[in-house]
Amino acid sequence: MGVLELDYSQYQTVYNVISFALASMLATFIFLLVVQGRVLPRYRQALVISAMVCLIAAYHYYRIFNSFEGAYVAVGEGSPATAMNAMSYVLVNGEGFNEGYRYVDWLLTVPLLLFETVAVLALAPQVRKSLLLKLIPASALMIILGYPGEISSDNMVRGIWGALSTIPFLYILYVLWVELSRSMKTQPAQVRKDLNGLRLLLLATWGVYPIAYLIPQLGIESAGAFVGRQVGYSIADVLAKCLFGLLIYKIAREKSFADDASFADQEIKAAPSSNTAS
Amino acid sequence: MGVLELDYSQYQTVYNVISFALASMLATFIFLLVVQGRVLPRYRQALVISAMVCLIAAYHYYRIFNSFEGAYVAVGEGSPATAMNAMSYVLVNGEGFNEGYRYVDWLLTVPLLLFETVAVLALAPQVRKSLLLKLIPASALMIILGYPGEISSDNMVRGIWGALSTIPFLYILYVLWVELSRSMKTQPAQVRKDLNGLRLLLLATWGVYPIAYLIPQLGIESAGAFVGRQVGYSIADVLAKCLFGLLIYKIAREKSFADDASFADQEIKAAPSSNTAS
Repeated sequence: MGVLELDYSQYQTVYNVISFALASMLATFIFLLVVQGRVLPRYRQALVISAMVCLIAAYHYYRIFNSFEGAYVAVGEGSPATAMNAMSYVLVNGEGFNEGYRYVDWLLTVPLLLFETVAVLALAPQVRKSLLLKLIPASALMIILGYPGEISSDNMVRGIWGALSTIPFLYILYVLWVELSRSMKTQPAQVRKDLNGLRLLLLATWGVYPIAYLIPQLGIESAGAFVGRQVGYSIADVLAKCLFGLLIYKIAREKSFADDASFADQEIKAAPSSNTAS
Repeated sequence: MGVLELDYSQYQTVYNVISFALASMLATFIFLLVVQGRVLPRYRQALVISAMVCLIAAYHYYRIFNSFEGAYVAVGEGSPATAMNAMSYVLVNGEGFNEGYRYVDWLLTVPLLLFETVAVLALAPQVRKSLLLKLIPASALMIILGYPGEISSDNMVRGIWGALSTIPFLYILYVLWVELSRSMKTQPAQVRKDLNGLRLLLLATWGVYPIAYLIPQLGIESAGAFVGRQVGYSIADVLAKCLFGLLIYKIAREKSFADDASFADQEIKAAPSSNTAS
């Protein structure tokens, strides 16, 4: 949906933050594909999945961008160059701004994010399968249960679906912190540290979504709240997908070097001996 | 075609499910191309064909999306923020919504889906050729015979062409369950299990199409039936093409590992002995 009227700077803020997210997703998508040769084959699947997450998000940000651009039209006196402050943007027709794209995006990308987190650890097939069978259905359930609340204007309905959606979210956190930790004992120390960073990033960014969800619940539905929600969602998406994907790449690199010393030598030898010897 | 009027949530549902299908096809197309190195060369042809199926479907969903978006226009009083429920969407002109794209898509993708199913098994050339010579013409015939019924508004005509189209469909099921099973004795147990999953997925998803075909036959032609048909076709397409393609990839991986132990080691070595031994 979207509010009826935005002032010049509010419109520009939403416009630019959506474009920022689109550019970030697109660049991270290509980056993660072209660096596959920088990790051992067994870690490439995790990179490909991370790239797909960014591709899917780039597609949806492209749609969100077009939807936002098409939903509002500038009104006001004078030319925009001279009278920016007198301008405002109003919803051009009944259609409004489609936020359904965000849900479709999460439905596809959130299970994939959990998949790549488990894939990059190259755990024993048994352990890997057990973790995925818990995490993937729980994440899909979390998104699906949030949707009926998101499209409802009734605060009671929002509250009920929001609370139901929180149950699988808490279960995911339990699996990631308790069950996954048990499988981490054989991992190199640096990888354990990175995995912890990954989990905290996930908690911090996924935490933005319920907060944005609760904003209308608190009776705040102004243009400012709308802008805040768009900025919050977009920045959370960039962190949860691009930064997350880059951390996956970092872990894949570290594990590749730990697995194969000659690969590490070829990839990161700091100062060739022929240079330092002279 | 399409019904004359949709309410706000019906329009949004069709819009979002078509976009969901497009995003899924696009991501699976790229994924299946970039993971070619994750299987032995002899299985890559099956992956490429699966990728082409998703590309062709992505193209048609892009067309379907644009056709749907162009076919309807919002009407209703009040602003969307305050009166979503009072809004509706009506067909903007006589052209309506072009569903012909779906038939063109199936005519191309259904034979290819059967081709990739046979290709990934790496059967003896003789057996492979014999299966393809039965499956491919039967699948093309099935789609072609369904079309005159789909575009007819006469229930008698729909019934006759629908029944004719069912004959090659049953023949395909016969070839897949009876003839293909005879060639499966030499396959690894896990591959036989996966092939069974593949066949059941094919039966379950292809079964959606005749059901959707029969809906107008039963005299149900409301906005709700239209929305149900679009959602049903889209989800069936995502399962029959994306999930099917990913299962083909899974089989190709398992067969690669069974064929070549050193490849398996390089691809899925769980925990290097140098780390766990210390």
